[in-house]
Amino acid sequence: MNRQEVGLKAEEMLNELADQTRMGDEIWRYIYSDTEKKGKKIIRQWMEALGLLVIEDQIGNLIARKEGKSKETIVIGSHMDTVKDGGKYDGAGGIVIGLLALKELIESDETFDKSIEIIAFTEEEGSRFLSGYLGSKNLVGKITQLELNDTDSDGISLKEAMISNGYDPEKLPKEKRRDVAAYLEVHIEQGPVLETLRHDIGIVESIVGIRAFDITIKGRQDHAGTTPMDIRLDPVYAASKFISETTDYVRRLSKTATFTIGAMSVLPGVSNVIADSTNFSIDLRDRSEEDLVNVTDRIYESLGSLEEQGYAVTIKLLCAEEPVDLDSRLSDFMYDKSQNLGLRTMKMVSGAGHDAQIIAPHIKTGLIFVPSVKGRSHSSDEYTKSYDLGNGVLLLATILKEMLQGEFDV
Amino acid sequence: MNRQEVGLKAEEMLNELADQTRMGDEIWRYIYSDTEKKGKKIIRQWMEALGLLVIEDQIGNLIARKEGKSKETIVIGSHMDTVKDGGKYDGAGGIVIGLLALKELIESDETFDKSIEIIAFTEEEGSRFLSGYLGSKNLVGKITQLELNDTDSDGISLKEAMISNGYDPEKLPKEKRRDVAAYLEVHIEQGPVLETLRHDIGIVESIVGIRAFDITIKGRQDHAGTTPMDIRLDPVYAASKFISETTDYVRRLSKTATFTIGAMSVLPGVSNVIADSTNFSIDLRDRSEEDLVNVTDRIYESLGSLEEQGYAVTIKLLCAEEPVDLDSRLSDFMYDKSQNLGLRTMKMVSGAGHDAQIIAPHIKTGLIFVPSVKGRSHSSDEYTKSYDLGNGVLLLATILKEMLQGEFDV
Repeated sequence: MNRQEVGLKAEEMLNELADQTRMGDEIWRYIYSDTEKKGKKIIRQWMEALGLLVIEDQIGNLIARKEGKSKETIVIGSHMDTVKDGGKYDGAGGIVIGLLALKELIESDETFDKSIEIIAFTEEEGSRFLSGYLGSKNLVGKITQLELNDTDSDGISLKEAMISNGYDPEKLPKEKRRDVAAYLEVHIEQGPVLETLRHDIGIVESIVGIRAFDITIKGRQDHAGTTPMDIRLDPVYAASKFISETTDYVRRLSKTATFTIGAMSVLPGVSNVIADSTNFSIDLRDRSEEDLVNVTDRIYESLGSLEEQGYAVTIKLLCAEEPVDLDSRLSDFMYDKSQNLGLRTMKMVSGAGHDAQIIAPHIKTGLIFVPSVKGRSHSSDEYTKSYDLGNGVLLLATILKEMLQGEFDV
Repeated sequence: MNRQEVGLKAEEMLNELADQTRMGDEIWRYIYSDTEKKGKKIIRQWMEALGLLVIEDQIGNLIARKEGKSKETIVIGSHMDTVKDGGKYDGAGGIVIGLLALKELIESDETFDKSIEIIAFTEEEGSRFLSGYLGSKNLVGKITQLELNDTDSDGISLKEAMISNGYDPEKLPKEKRRDVAAYLEVHIEQGPVLETLRHDIGIVESIVGIRAFDITIKGRQDHAGTTPMDIRLDPVYAASKFISETTDYVRRLSKTATFTIGAMSVLPGVSNVIADSTNFSIDLRDRSEEDLVNVTDRIYESLGSLEEQGYAVTIKLLCAEEPVDLDSRLSDFMYDKSQNLGLRTMKMVSGAGHDAQIIAPHIKTGLIFVPSVKGRSHSSDEYTKSYDLGNGVLLLATILKEMLQGEFDV
């Protein structure tokens, strides 16, 4: 295959998908949105152009199948949704790379001893509902009442949204897959490590664990000019002290842990009024479950001490995902294949969550990273060079070929 | 006079004014609003019922005059406007107390050697335009092109709003008053000091100076999970560290200074994205100009050091009002009169801005505080007991009587 041409083709497809699915100036494809629907139409056309049988499951995943001699199936997956004001590559990159790799196999008249599927998963990001990974969860039968009752910012539950979009929540349990021998995902790194260390390919060995919290600190609303400092309960001050001290603690504790407050609001939000309350998010990640527990303990302790001072604190644990190790035999195999192709390859940890982490506990799973320029992601600055997209297609096609030929026993 | 009856009358008048001037559930009388117009009608009726000559000046202040033997005039003033979702007492309390005190004098056949005016000022709060104190500024000839060009949230300038409401901006300079011997204002404290220390009356010696800033810290938007802690530019962390450290500094520096972050927003505000930028307000007040300068220097220094780390910081100084000392001879006189009436009286500093601070540099000015229950103000919880309103009327009537009789040489 011509790696350069294929890389440019991938870029062209990603540009087309992005340009057709903007909300105003921003790319945003959340589950069941008009932009996601438009995006699905485009992806379905790409799938059908390869002669694949395309179906949609009851959560809204697009599943394209190339039937092989055996029912045993290798799934290539990635998500089609994006965060608000997201980039062109996150998620969609893996779908396009998968399609181009499969195209390569079909055009080279490969014998399909096993069946291959490409799945475009919905709502990995959780940018409409709090829970993400909805598409991959459905693959492994893990959508529960918790997810179904989750509501969006308009108070609409996932269940209601499914029904009004023509999906049937009752049918979800039947869709759990038992025929999948291996799951492969290619994704942009969304971080600066590959670029910084000048590597072409990252083979992911493990995915960090995540704890996400929603915190509300309620103080006492008072006049900013007439309430002496020593008798106020100012939730903005309390939150600021907590955020800066906890961040410093995390940095001392671990070189790998991350601690992020990405969203914060203050009520009533008037410059000359001491706030009534502040609400903010916490995103905590690490590859070490022990450190996640340590930081979580520290969070509860610090916020607990605010209660003693008179603040009312609400802590909602939104998600607690343990670190996930991917299949080491598959990782080693992919690492060797990548090296053999002359690609500078490293093993690494993923700091972002991926559909792969949902699937890995149930199905043999491999995750491949291609570099992100400056590590930028979840932003319109997100960029992966066509050269690197081409490498992804080449590596994935090579791995699939070997799997079909039984070189790697799935 | 029957202090209790007068207090209940004041309460009744304040309830009437509030009930007639709601927008939906909220009290909000901003300049030239329908609710302010309704409020003006009611206040004009109260003024005319005392046999006063009522005129309106070109900014929209209501001026009610009791002609005396001399043109020399004592002005009693307070504002009729309110903040959004304001209380019944802030501003309006002083008008009603002034009217009831003047009623007392008229009914007791007092000899009016001097003239007395009650002025209901418009737009002290600045809840439509950024600049407040518009009514009192007009009294001392301080409405400039800056105020006239100020625009509201719909982009309408004060000048345009004046003209479309039948006022003539050209005539403002002619309205500067040169005949006012003394200005007296009664206001609710809007803070908890009088209640906490169990005092009936506060005699204000000085009004704090204010610096208000609008701060934006721009960092670099990145993925929360994949960007190592030591290479991020997280504006929420930077802002939190700044807010907590500067607050601690202010508390160490001064017992009287206040430092408040009442409004804060984070963009794009997504839990798993390191923010691009954060914007927040600073409200800094103190009676000491020196300390205001010290804290301001510290603010510029701390935020400047963020620039060195790679953040881009924008500092907008929205207002810089110097502390104002009120007339000490008048304050001493009012303090003595209050003590003589058996009222528990203290001298104090005002942490809130008042029309008095605009007028004090030009006219001998006295400011009297009555207690606010729990210090609550700028909210529907604002409350001052009828007992305390009655004390205000009694004290103001006593002071006016002595002034008319020449006991205090204005």
